[in-house]
Amino acid sequence: MKGAWLVDQGSPDITSAFRVTRLVHTEQTPYQHLEIYDSAIFGRMLVLDGAVQTTEREEFVYHEMLAHPALCAHPAPKRVLIIGGGDGGALEEALKHPLEGATLVEIDEAVVRTSREYLAGVAGRAFEDPRATLVIGDGIAYAGETAERFDVALVDSTDPQGSAVGLFAPEFYGTIARKLTPGGLLVVQSGSAMYQRDLIRSVRRTMRPFFPVVRTYVAAVVEYPGTLWSFTVGSLGPDPAVVPPDTIAKRTAGFGLRYYTPIGHQAAFAAPPFLREATESDT
Amino acid sequence: MKGAWLVDQGSPDITSAFRVTRLVHTEQTPYQHLEIYDSAIFGRMLVLDGAVQTTEREEFVYHEMLAHPALCAHPAPKRVLIIGGGDGGALEEALKHPLEGATLVEIDEAVVRTSREYLAGVAGRAFEDPRATLVIGDGIAYAGETAERFDVALVDSTDPQGSAVGLFAPEFYGTIARKLTPGGLLVVQSGSAMYQRDLIRSVRRTMRPFFPVVRTYVAAVVEYPGTLWSFTVGSLGPDPAVVPPDTIAKRTAGFGLRYYTPIGHQAAFAAPPFLREATESDT
Repeated sequence: MKGAWLVDQGSPDITSAFRVTRLVHTEQTPYQHLEIYDSAIFGRMLVLDGAVQTTEREEFVYHEMLAHPALCAHPAPKRVLIIGGGDGGALEEALKHPLEGATLVEIDEAVVRTSREYLAGVAGRAFEDPRATLVIGDGIAYAGETAERFDVALVDSTDPQGSAVGLFAPEFYGTIARKLTPGGLLVVQSGSAMYQRDLIRSVRRTMRPFFPVVRTYVAAVVEYPGTLWSFTVGSLGPDPAVVPPDTIAKRTAGFGLRYYTPIGHQAAFAAPPFLREATESDT
Repeated sequence: MKGAWLVDQGSPDITSAFRVTRLVHTEQTPYQHLEIYDSAIFGRMLVLDGAVQTTEREEFVYHEMLAHPALCAHPAPKRVLIIGGGDGGALEEALKHPLEGATLVEIDEAVVRTSREYLAGVAGRAFEDPRATLVIGDGIAYAGETAERFDVALVDSTDPQGSAVGLFAPEFYGTIARKLTPGGLLVVQSGSAMYQRDLIRSVRRTMRPFFPVVRTYVAAVVEYPGTLWSFTVGSLGPDPAVVPPDTIAKRTAGFGLRYYTPIGHQAAFAAPPFLREATESDT
């Protein structure tokens, strides 16, 4: 192996490493250690506390799969709340839908600032979209205080450590459920399907009291170690697992998506049998 | 990171690393450097020339996805040829179908011997199955000389280097096409969909003159770096991309599969848009 390697520190027993050609930027923010590298395989990457968060070339898998399944499951989403996701990738995907507004609440201004400066392709022109509102602040407090109601909430967080712990707590899911319109949906990243199955079970168990429908789906997020990544949806109405393929095709026509497809939606919610003990766990 | 890490040497720009607890066995065979480790996440693993080949806990993804798509696409496979695959995992999957016989040709006896001794769970009881024939020898020469004809051929090889180079050559695909019965199918592992897209294109281009139908599908093989792995099928008859889900459900009932499902078959052949330039390339 030649050159410098960035070794992802996200997991105790398996990891990914990427050959990097340049450390572009680094700073200690009040919340985390932030680094931006140029990598040989995935282009520029954002690294928080040693864990790869997003990459220029492959971010679309994670962001498309965070945003579109729930947005397509809702009959007509107009207002979206995004907690975290300061790189703007989830915001860009959400705004492809005919929304009236999307509010992004990121606790760490440095993530937004450095993403906009060094990883501009991840958000595209999302931050300039007149429908977008950017709030720098604590997403948990914001959700508690806002008078607004949302059709879909997306939680684009790091794993449950540091300032993200509260985003996995029952109080937070309860707050979000109260701030959703009837039939609204909450989506959270719920960790690696390979080495964080306890996290998946915990997220499902924690959501259950607040959402009559809880579904977990997976996607191949190749820049994360273990790769098969899980997302969990709590729904007050529609079952996101059974959106008709025709609906998805119609709703996403012209979006220029690179990962999410109608058959991909179906397959994502039908996890392979070896994962079902976790992805279909109830308690 | 604590303890020893096995760093997969399979790719120049991205790699996986696994925390290992014990080097169980190592030897230099006439063909390659062979190591067997106990890993924290995937149990025991077989490593050839520094690249992870198979793991006790996750081998089923690769082996199910190598064997079942083509075996389910064929109306009634009776005779199967496996080139490589000395760990016995593909043989075990193939023998779940009501075959008359399966012949496995492995060039390196050490792979069979050490897999049977240290990784017995990968093959299960496949080598003891009376329908199985084990040949230690050169798969290319064997395919050229055998008087037998096969309904399905599976090539479970390393990447195209060393003794595996010839398994990616036009002469070999031509030989196999002549040794298949009418409507027969050939499946090969065609590399990572993330960092070996040139290999996918090359395999497809090389198969094309011998097989009227060429299809590439993908699976999440989490123990390989880059993870999204590709397989390419050449078919003399049925189109493996369009097997009815009911047929797959019926044909695999009782197999106890952990990854391959009817919806998974469909989704595997409908690669995400960002891969289609490679997986649907014609020349």
